[in-house]
Amino acid sequence: MKKDKNNSEASESYPLSYPLLDQIASPLDLRNLSLKQLEPLCQEIRDCLITTLAETGGHFASNLGVVELTAALHYVYNTPDDRLIWDVGHQIYPHKMLTGRRKQLKSVRQTGGISGFPRREESIYDIYNTGHAGTSISQLLGEAIARDRQNKSHKCVCVIGDASITSGMALEALNHGGQMKTACLVILNDNNMSISANVGALSQYLKRFIRSRLYEKLKRLWYSVLMNLPIFGSILLNLSFKLEMLFVNLFIRYPFFQALGFRCVGPVDGHDIISLVKVLAKLRVTEEPTLLHVYTNKGHGYKPAELNPIRYHSVSVFNRNDGSFIKEPAKDRISFSQIVGESLLDIATRNSKVIVISPAMVEGSGLRKIYDTMPSRVFDVGIAEQHSISFAGALAATGMIPYLCIYSTFLNRGIDQLIQDIALMNLPVRLIIDRAGCVGPDGETHQGLYDLGLLLAVPNIQVYAPASGSELKAMLYYMESHNHSPLAIRFPKAECLASDLAVDFNSEFILSHKAIIDSDFAREKHSLGIIAVGAMWNIGLTLKKELARELDLSVMLIGLRWIRPLDLLALEEALKRVDKFIIIEDSYLHSSAAAYLLQLIQAKLLTRHLHTFAFPESPIEHGKREDILEKYGLSVSSIMNFLQSKLS
Amino acid sequence: MKKDKNNSEASESYPLSYPLLDQIASPLDLRNLSLKQLEPLCQEIRDCLITTLAETGGHFASNLGVVELTAALHYVYNTPDDRLIWDVGHQIYPHKMLTGRRKQLKSVRQTGGISGFPRREESIYDIYNTGHAGTSISQLLGEAIARDRQNKSHKCVCVIGDASITSGMALEALNHGGQMKTACLVILNDNNMSISANVGALSQYLKRFIRSRLYEKLKRLWYSVLMNLPIFGSILLNLSFKLEMLFVNLFIRYPFFQALGFRCVGPVDGHDIISLVKVLAKLRVTEEPTLLHVYTNKGHGYKPAELNPIRYHSVSVFNRNDGSFIKEPAKDRISFSQIVGESLLDIATRNSKVIVISPAMVEGSGLRKIYDTMPSRVFDVGIAEQHSISFAGALAATGMIPYLCIYSTFLNRGIDQLIQDIALMNLPVRLIIDRAGCVGPDGETHQGLYDLGLLLAVPNIQVYAPASGSELKAMLYYMESHNHSPLAIRFPKAECLASDLAVDFNSEFILSHKAIIDSDFAREKHSLGIIAVGAMWNIGLTLKKELARELDLSVMLIGLRWIRPLDLLALEEALKRVDKFIIIEDSYLHSSAAAYLLQLIQAKLLTRHLHTFAFPESPIEHGKREDILEKYGLSVSSIMNFLQSKLS
Repeated sequence: MKKDKNNSEASESYPLSYPLLDQIASPLDLRNLSLKQLEPLCQEIRDCLITTLAETGGHFASNLGVVELTAALHYVYNTPDDRLIWDVGHQIYPHKMLTGRRKQLKSVRQTGGISGFPRREESIYDIYNTGHAGTSISQLLGEAIARDRQNKSHKCVCVIGDASITSGMALEALNHGGQMKTACLVILNDNNMSISANVGALSQYLKRFIRSRLYEKLKRLWYSVLMNLPIFGSILLNLSFKLEMLFVNLFIRYPFFQALGFRCVGPVDGHDIISLVKVLAKLRVTEEPTLLHVYTNKGHGYKPAELNPIRYHSVSVFNRNDGSFIKEPAKDRISFSQIVGESLLDIATRNSKVIVISPAMVEGSGLRKIYDTMPSRVFDVGIAEQHSISFAGALAATGMIPYLCIYSTFLNRGIDQLIQDIALMNLPVRLIIDRAGCVGPDGETHQGLYDLGLLLAVPNIQVYAPASGSELKAMLYYMESHNHSPLAIRFPKAECLASDLAVDFNSEFILSHKAIIDSDFAREKHSLGIIAVGAMWNIGLTLKKELARELDLSVMLIGLRWIRPLDLLALEEALKRVDKFIIIEDSYLHSSAAAYLLQLIQAKLLTRHLHTFAFPESPIEHGKREDILEKYGLSVSSIMNFLQSKLS
Repeated sequence: MKKDKNNSEASESYPLSYPLLDQIASPLDLRNLSLKQLEPLCQEIRDCLITTLAETGGHFASNLGVVELTAALHYVYNTPDDRLIWDVGHQIYPHKMLTGRRKQLKSVRQTGGISGFPRREESIYDIYNTGHAGTSISQLLGEAIARDRQNKSHKCVCVIGDASITSGMALEALNHGGQMKTACLVILNDNNMSISANVGALSQYLKRFIRSRLYEKLKRLWYSVLMNLPIFGSILLNLSFKLEMLFVNLFIRYPFFQALGFRCVGPVDGHDIISLVKVLAKLRVTEEPTLLHVYTNKGHGYKPAELNPIRYHSVSVFNRNDGSFIKEPAKDRISFSQIVGESLLDIATRNSKVIVISPAMVEGSGLRKIYDTMPSRVFDVGIAEQHSISFAGALAATGMIPYLCIYSTFLNRGIDQLIQDIALMNLPVRLIIDRAGCVGPDGETHQGLYDLGLLLAVPNIQVYAPASGSELKAMLYYMESHNHSPLAIRFPKAECLASDLAVDFNSEFILSHKAIIDSDFAREKHSLGIIAVGAMWNIGLTLKKELARELDLSVMLIGLRWIRPLDLLALEEALKRVDKFIIIEDSYLHSSAAAYLLQLIQAKLLTRHLHTFAFPESPIEHGKREDILEKYGLSVSSIMNFLQSKLS
């Protein structure tokens, strides 16, 4: 067996083949390995993971952190009969590798490839499609109760991170589970991280349980010495383990989780596969709700990721020898998230009333710089979307100026709070909704396809969808003084030329609440009107040109930015001048601005409505954003095809 | 001063006047009273509350439980400069009585009267409009941070129940608050109840802190003796109190809340106003996040309510001498919630796979009988809507048959879970959505006006809105075998003749997925089509008769029950036979089935669409359901007025 190091942290050179991993087509094969073979196997998994993701990109540091835990779980538990649930699911890669999908790992998150999250459609070992944090304990309890009521005897276990477990729904589930006295195991994978460093009092509280690294290293050394002794070694190993457990049970208490009714075990080093296997084998037969505290390092075994797990949380293609990224972001382009971060830093510097709030998305929302520069003005509240919204509402009620930066998909977690604690009281929270519309590689669970429908269903909230980076920037500045209602802006994961922002932006159109209607408006009649909602403006522009060239059609392009309040008169005036019109937007059809418009536009103009291009009412899978838009008929070419058949 | 008893539990006779209460126009007057006067004042508040609510009805038991706490808070804290937040808010009546609204209490929850919840529009002492559980700690933190950032020095305090504090968002807020180290006080009002008996492990955990009643009685006697001694009495009283606090601080720990970073004080008897005032005065100057554990009895001081706090949670008119209700429910009528409870009991008895889930609404959802009869098959998960939805999803994934009974307004708490953990995986959860549409007396925060829009925006979920009790019943039975997708039914708080249910209901129309179209369908042409969504069918029926009589119009009535899947062909066929059509529904206009229909109906038929009668996009206040429907143009008479002007 080729194996060139014992220290899993050294990874600068790596095997060219995977002798153990090659034997594993499913967890059944894994269970045929000896205990001794598990550590070298984990080394192979880790090497394969690093090599593959260096070439393809994907979620990275969290997957390196759960290699041993994943192997130990499939080794001890009889999956898929025993039910194994992964919270969030972006740490699912080692699981996919051990359940028959190693060869497909290189297609992860790509159009047509395997998903970066658990997916029932892919494998019987993925029992829930997940993506958002904190759902696994509820699912664990459902599984356990169903087993009990059906008089079955399989085991149920879930793995949840220390950030996820502080999300409200996970705590709700713990409170319910502790009362139910059903056999189930919650594994708390504690790496003191969410996607950024984890926050909150509970995170500090957990830290005190973590043991020293020296102790762990010595213990692992001792175990490996024992394992290589004949007969007596195995007996001594068991004795050592039992002594340690005795000690731990005597002296370590987890009053927080015990108050919730859980028996607690831990802490266990999550990179010590021998201890993991032994503890899990013991807990597998437990008859009560139990919590196992395992601590791991995000990025474990790959130095650059260990040193900067946030940067390596999700990676693009990189050089595995030094961790450098092959394709650094283009210097002349700026992402919409960066525009948010830079604008808010400027605004908050001038205005001491500005407070910025993020539910655990400081990096993704472009807020790292302002978070580090003005820590007293930026609140990362952790994975606590519900709380973040009501907290923002209260700040607005006191006259502060809260900007709440949240992903569209995570806003769904706080709809009730948005209604009750912001909208009904008409409190001027500034909602900055990033990743709205089709998200691309993350897929079904992360699509931002609901926000427009939700926002427009709720009283009082004004809704603006910028068509460009410069409009986004202008809006962020305008919002500062918009204090008579809540105001939401929504925009996709996109970027623009940095030079576009240099333009001295005239925000008159924002104040006038007008939809932008293009310069051909003066012309009396057009064959077609295109209402392009928000960032679909670019598609509208291209279409207009192509329709003129290919079909010789005159097109009126209506860029709908202010969706509420809507300048309905102007819109109807425009529609009177077109023979037909279409609507293009980056939403579900039934959760769209289009549904809102069609309700408001005069009945006699509605016959001119030819089609709404939006997403149909089914789950929208992962892939490149452009590929997905194309597939669902939202690209220039597919809209052209439709129009050519209808209009020519 | 007239005062005929010391024992607050005796309440069979009561004062005819309120000498102390009459002096109190605002908390300023309260603060002019001596410490000694507070107990008689509380007696007056309690008597006035009982007398008034016996005549008008309203939330009752929870208000009796916070009389002393409310008086103590306004006595110690400098409201409204100090910020006092009431979680949920149905326990706000004593607060309203002490803040200038005693005379208006008799109009509570009635059309045009004061709200049964805090309402900023009513008083500067109501700082947030609330209604749903668990929001107060987030708001408390927002208030505290805003104060700190503005360098102000007022105090912030919230009162939250032991059931509310286990809701996910409250726990999220505690975790965030414990890290922030800002001065604020969370008062945990522990009566071991939500609206029903509280559930969950934490509730059991809290019980062990409660002291004996004998101890409390002796202590209160000792305090009142001391208070009536000259000078030395006051010194002894202070000494006694300090000794007790010393003892408590030495021996009582709240590790659960301490893990979340809160300093914890308690437990304190919430009906001992002297102790309350003393503790609050001490805590008012605290500089760190603090939690005070107060225990109270729901219904305190009124025997019938103490004995049965669930029955007296919200009351109709009753006889204050014996607690009997003046208007018992009519024997020949049955509520929709009762239909649910009785049908599910029958179905679950036959089918062992059926599981019924309720997030703390066992009584309201009509589930008391099945809960008591089959405790292993019904799960009250507490105020944990998010968890309840994912839990139901997992049960469905295992092949169980979960019926999730939830109010429309509380479904908003779990939209993300509905999307992620049910809809995207197409798991056959049966969603029973009670209190859909306009709810009447509870008002803005409890309106069920969002569910249709939300459900129709989400993939895979089928949606059915029964028009009558017998359809509801038929659907509950049909759902049992509907296992190829999630299915939601939504219905208002309504009732029907019990005899209607005796009809042998032909469920063919359910299976055929047809909208019911009335018998005049055969006729070739009609002047008007009425699409009545779900329970608006009755209004449609009356309108049809009146339009025939008053305007001699022929009307085709289309009862829309299956909203998704929609029999679009049949609907369009019907619309071709009418000159004009209207849509009537019990939803917000932009969160309605109408928006969904208008998106789907052929463009050329849309010109026949005359109007959609639904709620406009503003908060909808409390009042009798009929009054509210009338005000927003959803009654027969207002629709008739509209049609008379348009069609005659």
